[in-house]
Amino acid sequence: MKALATSPAARGLEDDAAVIELGDETLVLSHDTMIEGVHTLAGQDPADVAWKLVAVNLSDLAAKGAKPVGVLISHMLGDDDHRFVIGLREVLETYDVPLLGGDTVRGGGERVWGCTAIGRATHRPVPSRSGARPGDAVYLSGRIGYAMLGLEALRDDTDQDDSAYRRPVPQLALGQELAPHVSAMMDVSDGLLLDASRIARASGVTLSLDSDPLLNLAPQGRLDDAIRWGDDYVLLCTGPAGLDDQLEVTRIGEVGLLGDHEVLLDNQPPQGDLGYTH
Amino acid sequence: MKALATSPAARGLEDDAAVIELGDETLVLSHDTMIEGVHTLAGQDPADVAWKLVAVNLSDLAAKGAKPVGVLISHMLGDDDHRFVIGLREVLETYDVPLLGGDTVRGGGERVWGCTAIGRATHRPVPSRSGARPGDAVYLSGRIGYAMLGLEALRDDTDQDDSAYRRPVPQLALGQELAPHVSAMMDVSDGLLLDASRIARASGVTLSLDSDPLLNLAPQGRLDDAIRWGDDYVLLCTGPAGLDDQLEVTRIGEVGLLGDHEVLLDNQPPQGDLGYTH
Repeated sequence: MKALATSPAARGLEDDAAVIELGDETLVLSHDTMIEGVHTLAGQDPADVAWKLVAVNLSDLAAKGAKPVGVLISHMLGDDDHRFVIGLREVLETYDVPLLGGDTVRGGGERVWGCTAIGRATHRPVPSRSGARPGDAVYLSGRIGYAMLGLEALRDDTDQDDSAYRRPVPQLALGQELAPHVSAMMDVSDGLLLDASRIARASGVTLSLDSDPLLNLAPQGRLDDAIRWGDDYVLLCTGPAGLDDQLEVTRIGEVGLLGDHEVLLDNQPPQGDLGYTH
Repeated sequence: MKALATSPAARGLEDDAAVIELGDETLVLSHDTMIEGVHTLAGQDPADVAWKLVAVNLSDLAAKGAKPVGVLISHMLGDDDHRFVIGLREVLETYDVPLLGGDTVRGGGERVWGCTAIGRATHRPVPSRSGARPGDAVYLSGRIGYAMLGLEALRDDTDQDDSAYRRPVPQLALGQELAPHVSAMMDVSDGLLLDASRIARASGVTLSLDSDPLLNLAPQGRLDDAIRWGDDYVLLCTGPAGLDDQLEVTRIGEVGLLGDHEVLLDNQPPQGDLGYTH
């Protein structure tokens, strides 16, 4: 989960989903915890919280090309549980995912929610962060920076559409389509530059990104913010040239030998932090 | 999880582990959330919190006769994380369970921890709460009321041994031995009477318990408390007569046709609540 109030270093780096072999199946497991006022805005509609809680975990499965088997939910009871239940039902029905179980608890203080998503791999080997090779192209499966606009809309009451922040869309079908073709894949939860650096580090390469295609994927005039923000839950992957002819991805750069920097933007190291400390 | 400060009604009734078929395996999934000061004593050693967090989930697997595959941990960062890591390592090494992943988060207020345990069934059908039949015997796999003494020791600084409260022991091996023989099984997390009523309700029968054998399993003079407390994580099961000759269980009653009460103690309905509201 992207935390609104933490530095990148404080965000867990173990966010990647776990992959385990079990019998003739390969399981993919993801867990995310959300804290009221940290990963959500204080006072946000619990229906949106429930949607996002599940969606971000399904996005982790999407990045592994996995098909959801079900979720376990941990819910801290509050005053407006009916809204949480409504949002939970919406997201589970939308993605046809069964609620397998979980736990309800009572506590004071900020509310905390957890979700564990269980999926089955549709392609083996399961895509990881570590397979990018020099010569691969880098692709992004959608727009970035719109969750940022959505947060600003909710927080500052602007006229922007806030749905990208409130109701992120896990790219489950696309993840399954991509899985057989990619050399590395992850979802962009903490910002494009930061997440690109994770693929670069895991793979021992440099990801060299081009701002031209990214300008078309980000809100006008906000590219610098958009590549350092997150919460967009699009897929970032590497693979052979031409994937963008077959599938709904945009080529945004190429993989090179590891140089002095893990990520380059227009052949320069990005200025400042890779991710904002909001 | 047993909540120290909640009524039985507030405790989740969906605590039972989830069972799903996947390929040629049957998965068993459990999730529990613990809140500082609610499910733990304020100021408790985080090493003990970590142990208990994992152990109570492994106990859910034990009640299904499942063998652990791994756990996902959600950990809210605090001042003494090294103690949490120590306890986590101890419990995972003791039961030879891999840490598959999870999430670390920062937040204010009370700390919250979550654990999802994944297991594979060793016997099918997987024991549930709903298979008890009139004529079955009722068995308990260990002592009750000692977690209660342990809590009192910690809270009131008595001389009692507090390990049963701090470091519950999931009965994984025994659960696997019992699974082929039992008609219903669960772990006693919320108190013997309350959990017995859950098997009775799920099975549509009455569980008739005898205080004589229970007197030997509970602290002297505390039987009334011990059968309404919890946190003991022993196994409660029903099955054919004679199981206690083969396995480490004590016969504590028998299953009868559903009568006016789901649970009887010495042929009388238990007085007062089935579980205490602490």
